[in-house]
Amino acid sequence: MNTSPERRTYKMTIAYDGTNYCGWQIQPNGISIQELIQKAMATILRKEITIIASGRTDAGVHALGQIAHFHYTEPLDAYRLQGSLNSLLPVDIRIHNIVEAPANFHAQHSPVGKTYHYNVHLDRVQDPFQRLYCLHVKEKIDLNILREAAKIFVGTHDFTSFANEAYKGSAAKDPVRTLRRLDIIDQPGGIRFELEADGFLYKMVRNIVGTLLECAAGKHSIYQVREMLAAKDRRVSGMAAPPQGLFLVFVDY
Amino acid sequence: MNTSPERRTYKMTIAYDGTNYCGWQIQPNGISIQELIQKAMATILRKEITIIASGRTDAGVHALGQIAHFHYTEPLDAYRLQGSLNSLLPVDIRIHNIVEAPANFHAQHSPVGKTYHYNVHLDRVQDPFQRLYCLHVKEKIDLNILREAAKIFVGTHDFTSFANEAYKGSAAKDPVRTLRRLDIIDQPGGIRFELEADGFLYKMVRNIVGTLLECAAGKHSIYQVREMLAAKDRRVSGMAAPPQGLFLVFVDY
Repeated sequence: MNTSPERRTYKMTIAYDGTNYCGWQIQPNGISIQELIQKAMATILRKEITIIASGRTDAGVHALGQIAHFHYTEPLDAYRLQGSLNSLLPVDIRIHNIVEAPANFHAQHSPVGKTYHYNVHLDRVQDPFQRLYCLHVKEKIDLNILREAAKIFVGTHDFTSFANEAYKGSAAKDPVRTLRRLDIIDQPGGIRFELEADGFLYKMVRNIVGTLLECAAGKHSIYQVREMLAAKDRRVSGMAAPPQGLFLVFVDY
Repeated sequence: MNTSPERRTYKMTIAYDGTNYCGWQIQPNGISIQELIQKAMATILRKEITIIASGRTDAGVHALGQIAHFHYTEPLDAYRLQGSLNSLLPVDIRIHNIVEAPANFHAQHSPVGKTYHYNVHLDRVQDPFQRLYCLHVKEKIDLNILREAAKIFVGTHDFTSFANEAYKGSAAKDPVRTLRRLDIIDQPGGIRFELEADGFLYKMVRNIVGTLLECAAGKHSIYQVREMLAAKDRRVSGMAAPPQGLFLVFVDY
């Protein structure tokens, strides 16, 4: 048995339905995903442990593959810990795996890329089973315009116009990001935006998706959307799309 | 404008997420889908109207295509009524359409067939996004045995062993039904049972699915399942599968 007090780093993959939570990060008001996992860890390991995620997700936003890390010095059966956590946690939060990571692994600082999906349901009548996982758009939107306007965002840009002011303690000072891909995929009942970048500014996905949908509904021209990005001013761009359509799908290290 | 007091019959197609309801049928305790639709109808039409569904669904059971009918003597813009109902109803209940039906149409008595689906998630770790719409089975089940045992039920049988005592007022006296099809379809993360019959006894789908899953987990042999059906005695068969995996998909007239 390894009883050396060496600090080890563990990487956790987590899926959660964000509907019932105030988001990933611990908040004074409301139940967060971080809080519930930390409480369950404390119950199992009899020790307070801080879990750092790749980034916070807001209230109502979902994750298929959120990544987090924590440090632990005692011997740890990670597979067993995963099972114990899933027994204690509500079923809308599931730990997919826990593995030991390199000592310098940091869930928030090490990512080289992130992928988000945003689901939009386009039928006249909303789908009751998608209400928590899709934005429902009733009005007619032009998918050709949507796909054309989406191209504006791909590449390396200053995304200030599409970033909300970051929350306190956020490290994001540089507003330049490289959006590697912004695909719009047909899926039953609607479409799915797939966005992959080296990183995202606060609310960037929801601001881009909301603005693109407004453009495809005729509220802005493609020219205007291009101007918004060039303006580097949050006040000029469109509405943020609501949280329930957004999924953090993958974090790449 | 047609102002004749002739009684017309209307057919409604309804989808609902059953999670938050005590079932289709009005109950003294709990909120039912029937109650909410009737209340919304009363608000819009200023008249109490009874809606008869093809059959009740239990608490937690979902519907993609529940059918109901009602009578109305005044002129009625059915398309507009549909829109108004969807504005008033919670988004987990959606009216897909309302059309005039033949005068003798009866949602409960006229069906010639019904289709139910039952979703089972088979990963070791539950999917947070399927928790309300799938049964999660952690233990290993043998899909070959499952498919072999499923064949026992197809055809015309006395399904007494797989029917719970019907609720008061149920017309089902004859326990013989013809199960036209019981397919087990692979789907991402698990399987889907698809059952089509001329009609189903009370809790018949959940009792069949539950017993089949127990058989595939090694709790009953295929021979024993065959004996259960032959026994015509509810006490001999397996556990009912829980409600959340069950969807009323289609009612055929």
